[in-house]
Amino acid sequence: MRLQLLLTGNELMSGHTVDSNSAMFADYLARLGYRIDRKVTLGDSLEALVSELDAISRDCDLLLVNGGLGPTDDDLTAQALALATGTALQQHPQALAHLQDWCVQRKVTLNAANLKQALLPAGAEVLANPVGSAVGFAVQHNGCLIACTPGVPVELEAMLEQSLLPMLRARLPAADFHLTRRWQTFGLGESQIQQTLHNRHPDWPATVEVGFRAGFPLLELKLTVRAKDALKALERCSADLCALIDDHLIGTDNATLQAALVEALQRKNMRLVTAESCTGGLIASKITEVPGASAVFQTGWVTYANDSKQQQLGVSAELLQQHGAVSEETVLAMSRGALQRSGADVAIAVSGIAGPDGGSAEKPVGTVWIALADRASTHSYGLRIKANRLRFQQLTAAIALDLLRRRLCNLPLQPAYLQRYQPD
Amino acid sequence: MRLQLLLTGNELMSGHTVDSNSAMFADYLARLGYRIDRKVTLGDSLEALVSELDAISRDCDLLLVNGGLGPTDDDLTAQALALATGTALQQHPQALAHLQDWCVQRKVTLNAANLKQALLPAGAEVLANPVGSAVGFAVQHNGCLIACTPGVPVELEAMLEQSLLPMLRARLPAADFHLTRRWQTFGLGESQIQQTLHNRHPDWPATVEVGFRAGFPLLELKLTVRAKDALKALERCSADLCALIDDHLIGTDNATLQAALVEALQRKNMRLVTAESCTGGLIASKITEVPGASAVFQTGWVTYANDSKQQQLGVSAELLQQHGAVSEETVLAMSRGALQRSGADVAIAVSGIAGPDGGSAEKPVGTVWIALADRASTHSYGLRIKANRLRFQQLTAAIALDLLRRRLCNLPLQPAYLQRYQPD
Repeated sequence: MRLQLLLTGNELMSGHTVDSNSAMFADYLARLGYRIDRKVTLGDSLEALVSELDAISRDCDLLLVNGGLGPTDDDLTAQALALATGTALQQHPQALAHLQDWCVQRKVTLNAANLKQALLPAGAEVLANPVGSAVGFAVQHNGCLIACTPGVPVELEAMLEQSLLPMLRARLPAADFHLTRRWQTFGLGESQIQQTLHNRHPDWPATVEVGFRAGFPLLELKLTVRAKDALKALERCSADLCALIDDHLIGTDNATLQAALVEALQRKNMRLVTAESCTGGLIASKITEVPGASAVFQTGWVTYANDSKQQQLGVSAELLQQHGAVSEETVLAMSRGALQRSGADVAIAVSGIAGPDGGSAEKPVGTVWIALADRASTHSYGLRIKANRLRFQQLTAAIALDLLRRRLCNLPLQPAYLQRYQPD
Repeated sequence: MRLQLLLTGNELMSGHTVDSNSAMFADYLARLGYRIDRKVTLGDSLEALVSELDAISRDCDLLLVNGGLGPTDDDLTAQALALATGTALQQHPQALAHLQDWCVQRKVTLNAANLKQALLPAGAEVLANPVGSAVGFAVQHNGCLIACTPGVPVELEAMLEQSLLPMLRARLPAADFHLTRRWQTFGLGESQIQQTLHNRHPDWPATVEVGFRAGFPLLELKLTVRAKDALKALERCSADLCALIDDHLIGTDNATLQAALVEALQRKNMRLVTAESCTGGLIASKITEVPGASAVFQTGWVTYANDSKQQQLGVSAELLQQHGAVSEETVLAMSRGALQRSGADVAIAVSGIAGPDGGSAEKPVGTVWIALADRASTHSYGLRIKANRLRFQQLTAAIALDLLRRRLCNLPLQPAYLQRYQPD
């Protein structure tokens, strides 16, 4: 199976958009066991698209086209495909019905620009778009199956799940056997894992491929085998890898820090409150992304100003004056205040300097204190996270979530990764 | 000037790595006025690389190759270029000197794997790498200048700045003139803008290209001209486009809703508080992403549980019992409670059902109330946002930010986009 991607859009050429769609294609196609052989990316030029469609279709079995399905003049995919395949553009009844339905749902009138999205190459097969106005479509040309998909990532993902993958499964030959297992980890580096793997397992079998994907804040590890007789080796290697990841393991597949924490709270039947300064509500918003968070999350305070820390959490003016808002004393007082003012069992508090301004020689930008408190005890951590404002906030939130997860799961409370963030 | 990129690496094909390098290339090349016409991405296959290098070089003036310069067996660029150009690989004195220097600086011994990085096609011109071990190099073939660069983003950036761009500036003809203006908008659809543009400006000049990029939650619009004598038309069209965007204009370039709101609050010298239920802190966290938010943002409450709404914001138990947590009465009480408990001038409150559970026939998943309050008045909005949990939260936050922005800027308080979210 020779498979190519053709990505279109001036925004992909101009540097204004980073292409995340082709990684999504690769991930979904891997479920069918398919690998992408080649990708071509073009701007919105009709002539270039027509000649590329023709050239690529002569050279592969499946061509997936992405982008250019929108209602505007720079959306050229249907027109280019009609020209490349020598067919006419026709109003497709199924595409038209979808557009009408979409407009009714959004309480808007179908306009001429939208109507363009119902014009498809004659004989095309429609691919449902459960999210947006643009349907996808597929045609056969030069012995190649060409399927066109929308460039908006959320629409592409819905189409992959609900119409494209089922169609490919039905139409294309089964790929060779393959099985992939995935784990999400927090706090380990890619080269660190690679090195430890080499040292501990010099006899690692060649049939079990190790893969990494550096997400943020998590690092994904995966193991893939491509033959059924390697399944036993996969079992053994999975156990070895998990032993190596150890307490840095957040979960399998698409696990997240926040979902792991919500699950741990549910298991212990504990309710959480948050008291945030520099993360500005990010910790609470991560937790409440998880369906069912209401069972374990009660209240979050974003006490951004000093007087807010006093009024809402009862941090004393003297304490703030003496130690400053970014101090161990203040986060501990914030965490205790949050517990006192709620019926919750456990509290996270953070206070730090996100930058770019607000730093001093004693407390430079990146300084942050995190406190965890329950009714019986408190733990505090003083760190220095050198990153831009947004990354500082995201990393602080992730570390706070992980430290509480560790506490609830009885895992080491001083993970090695904290050394990276020790104040100078 | 016909310019293409050739990106190499299995990690780009497998979905493990999102390609951010080509956006970096585009950004830097734009400084010279160059546009990338086409990108090809390949895995680490020697045969495929050789044939692609030969084919592309016949078709353009400048080919920039990225990746495959490392010390390991799957780094094939130098070898592929030697084969494609019919030259031998030779140890290059300048590359060797760089490697020796790099090893001394890092206190490591030059090993065989590293030595491979000094083997370049005969006659190649070295491009300095100020950061990593792999030098870049350039050759002329089929009338095309081919320059090879490292895949590690930080090394690529250093090479672009310090050696590649200066070389291109010296060697290539000056680019054609071009100028792009960008605007961020909220609440308008792509097809709606296109349609209105067609209707209002049937005589839109062909010299002013209109472009769209559907971000989330913002839609970017841009105008580009490619000749100096089109600058006057660009001025006129920019004014026309801004008149059409009207109150949906958030700002130019990389403007965001939260930055526009923080700026409006600063201008009015007003302090904001937030009281969130279903958005779980997302509104506060968006606002505090903006540097300098502390000047205008004081306190955020995430009152996720009913008793939290009572204790923290003084919403009465009777009111909650009578109208429910997701009701106009409750968000208004939340917004008033937030104002009373702070010295702030204005409050945002939201309460809704993010799903997937928690809906009822009367209040289905997606139901949400937003209130804006100042010392003198309140406004409330009842909406139904049909989207998955995460999108519901993001869209609710964006609408709340926009509605307050509108209020502070004396813009229409019932924008047309709200019709999309009217309850059935």
